[in-house]
Amino acid sequence: MRVEIVDVGPRDGLQNEEKTLPPEIRAGLCDRLAAAGVPRVEAASFVNPKRVPQMAGAEEVIAGLNRREGTSYAGLVLNEKGYERAVAAGVDEVRYAFPLTDEFARRNQNTTVEEAAALAGRLAGRAREDGVRFSVTLSVAFGCPFEGEVRPERVLEVAGQVAGASPDEVVLADTIGVGVPTQVRALVQELSEIAPEETAVGCHFHDTRNTGIANAVAAVESGATVLDASVGGTGGCPFAPRATGNIATEDLVYTLHGMGYETGIDLDALIEVAGWLSEQLGKELPGRVHKAGAFAPVSG
Amino acid sequence: MRVEIVDVGPRDGLQNEEKTLPPEIRAGLCDRLAAAGVPRVEAASFVNPKRVPQMAGAEEVIAGLNRREGTSYAGLVLNEKGYERAVAAGVDEVRYAFPLTDEFARRNQNTTVEEAAALAGRLAGRAREDGVRFSVTLSVAFGCPFEGEVRPERVLEVAGQVAGASPDEVVLADTIGVGVPTQVRALVQELSEIAPEETAVGCHFHDTRNTGIANAVAAVESGATVLDASVGGTGGCPFAPRATGNIATEDLVYTLHGMGYETGIDLDALIEVAGWLSEQLGKELPGRVHKAGAFAPVSG
Repeated sequence: MRVEIVDVGPRDGLQNEEKTLPPEIRAGLCDRLAAAGVPRVEAASFVNPKRVPQMAGAEEVIAGLNRREGTSYAGLVLNEKGYERAVAAGVDEVRYAFPLTDEFARRNQNTTVEEAAALAGRLAGRAREDGVRFSVTLSVAFGCPFEGEVRPERVLEVAGQVAGASPDEVVLADTIGVGVPTQVRALVQELSEIAPEETAVGCHFHDTRNTGIANAVAAVESGATVLDASVGGTGGCPFAPRATGNIATEDLVYTLHGMGYETGIDLDALIEVAGWLSEQLGKELPGRVHKAGAFAPVSG
Repeated sequence: MRVEIVDVGPRDGLQNEEKTLPPEIRAGLCDRLAAAGVPRVEAASFVNPKRVPQMAGAEEVIAGLNRREGTSYAGLVLNEKGYERAVAAGVDEVRYAFPLTDEFARRNQNTTVEEAAALAGRLAGRAREDGVRFSVTLSVAFGCPFEGEVRPERVLEVAGQVAGASPDEVVLADTIGVGVPTQVRALVQELSEIAPEETAVGCHFHDTRNTGIANAVAAVESGATVLDASVGGTGGCPFAPRATGNIATEDLVYTLHGMGYETGIDLDALIEVAGWLSEQLGKELPGRVHKAGAFAPVSG
């Protein structure tokens, strides 16, 4: 079976790093990921650079790509203006994200869940006309740093509304890394049942409490076909206190390949990308497989 | 459902740390774990202190315990001499470990798999006479750093032989952290089928490639009732190159409680033990829940 991995490292990974990498390096990261066989790369964030300075120069990142045939380059957007910037910049896909609690929605993008969900429907229509792939991410689907528990009924209510607009995918995001496998299975199974056939179900996990890979396994075994991850395990969320990085793409690929899933990714090449990114950021990254290596017996 | 967690931090955790903690501090760690509700603690290693200096003073650790009613204190042994030392020191249970490949067995404890498996049978008999609980750990059950893949048939052949001596438990150990959930499920299910009713099936995971919690979930869902872990995620193996720590007990407890399993452990108290151990070792530990905290919304 195939799992489609979206490397969100150039966006979610780098947006919370202390060191800001210039657009040409971020474009270079995307190129390296594409060369390693990553099928989809979240290359840039079309948000206000005053709020997230690490993401400044989104247009330059997209313009700086050496686009690889078969790779899809995405831009994250939080509102209609971002959508327009992303499409004008020439992304292959727009990924629109909004939170499932009003408090987080207000802090993160100055909106309400109701308004944000309505916008998902409008953007889905525009994306169809514009001929770009369109994905909707539902943040804090497994718990909110401000409101606490997010009831599964509420998640599915909003997810169902969004799925009704037939986006290419709906992604459940564990923004602050609190979910556990039983929770993942229940939500993914139910969302898979209510989503239209043309809408893929994806998941986005942070490894804040070390549950990320377990949750990813639970997700693909329950019907998710898309998983976000960041090479090296960089990342976090500037507006989610104590959130740490995304699951590391190389750790995810190691696990999925070992379990018999196909990803199209060359793990050894990906491990090299993690090493390169670690050098660019001048720090050790939390991913583990790029340090331990894929399994090979040692001699001596 | 209940999962029995054995905190192996005072033994597997500390045996590979650069800083050696004196026996009284190691006994204090056991006391703190017991007070947090950990039902079984691997307190000491009865091995040659010349080979593993971090474990010197095993008898003093056991003598220094403030034994708590209901907590079982175990000693690791690799041979008959170790067994005798452990019983003489007054442990409640002996945990005997040997590897499933001859190369690792030679390097780790100067024996062969055949000799080591035969010893398991003899020690099981002696433990019954001595009235101590007896557990057998099969190391490198998911892959060997020297011989590579370890065939499941081989694992089950040796495990079946050992289980035939009716020890209290047989533990499959992923000493170098290479296993994936599908592999765990297959081995645990098959071992559960061939083990006698009085023999529990356990697992021991290292988080070298970030698969540890996913593997632990796979294990308990396939019939394992015992899981090893180290508070704070310390550990490794002096004779297994590039192996890193055990799964962190607090990360495991967070996951299991979230999934509805009972462990008898107070997570908040356990998080405090991890913080204390981090101070004793003077370093940040790899476990995540003790840094992120159990899930609680933040205010402000």
